[in-house]
Amino acid sequence: MAGGSSTDEPRSFHVRRLQMTDKSKGFIELLRQLSVCDSVSDEEFRDRFQELSTMGDDHVICVIEDERSGKIVATGSVFIEKKFLRNCGRVGHIEDVVVDRDARGLQLGKKVVAFLREHARSMGCYKVILDCSVENRAFYEKCGFKHKEVQMVQYFT
Amino acid sequence: MAGGSSTDEPRSFHVRRLQMTDKSKGFIELLRQLSVCDSVSDEEFRDRFQELSTMGDDHVICVIEDERSGKIVATGSVFIEKKFLRNCGRVGHIEDVVVDRDARGLQLGKKVVAFLREHARSMGCYKVILDCSVENRAFYEKCGFKHKEVQMVQYFT
Repeated sequence: MAGGSSTDEPRSFHVRRLQMTDKSKGFIELLRQLSVCDSVSDEEFRDRFQELSTMGDDHVICVIEDERSGKIVATGSVFIEKKFLRNCGRVGHIEDVVVDRDARGLQLGKKVVAFLREHARSMGCYKVILDCSVENRAFYEKCGFKHKEVQMVQYFT
Repeated sequence: MAGGSSTDEPRSFHVRRLQMTDKSKGFIELLRQLSVCDSVSDEEFRDRFQELSTMGDDHVICVIEDERSGKIVATGSVFIEKKFLRNCGRVGHIEDVVVDRDARGLQLGKKVVAFLREHARSMGCYKVILDCSVENRAFYEKCGFKHKEVQMVQYFT
């Protein structure tokens, strides 16, 4: 039975906002599964957390914590852009959605995206957008998104 | 000679930040060439302008004014997203670039994009990104961008 992960208790996963204590629960390690994030000190984490907190509902990072292991297993963020276009409209930008590779197949990505989308809707956005790889396009289509434009990037070296 | 627009003076176009008085110089009419923007009152404009001003260098809208006509003939915006990813990195998001249809061919789009890109660089961003139509991809490639991902959208009705 060693290493078995099944129990009689059903697992439940709730989406909540990022908390300061989530750094010690593997939040940064989870981001590493998406892109480079190899050195964030406790102080840097706290400073960025506080900086984003001043934006209130205009920049929200959500997480799912596995209550059994106490680890963060999924995350995503959304920020609200305020335009003059569309009669001073607002647009929700979803970024940095990732699910722990050991927690795939549990629909956690869908839960995260639904949370972020509903936050954008509640903030009065007329649309929510994101950029993804061609491989992830089918996942976002299942979440109700449609392909529209092409993303262009320029890196600073 | 009626309607002629050529003179002996060379035309020069400078990029500057949006000012409160730009509403009366055709800024909203210019945005209408990009997407819906059919009713923005002076009060709504002032409120959104002041709201964006509180973000300082984190959200910048630039314009080019035709000094002969006193009209705004090009604009674009960039906002700075603050992440935990990439070691608390920053990303510049370019949005709402448009050049007046009567001022095409003067390289104004390139000037606007260069201004926004340099602002993102000066803010310490590791990259700058934007979404565009397939038709505009070649223009952004000339500006130094490369195609990377696909943009997905969900409209709220």
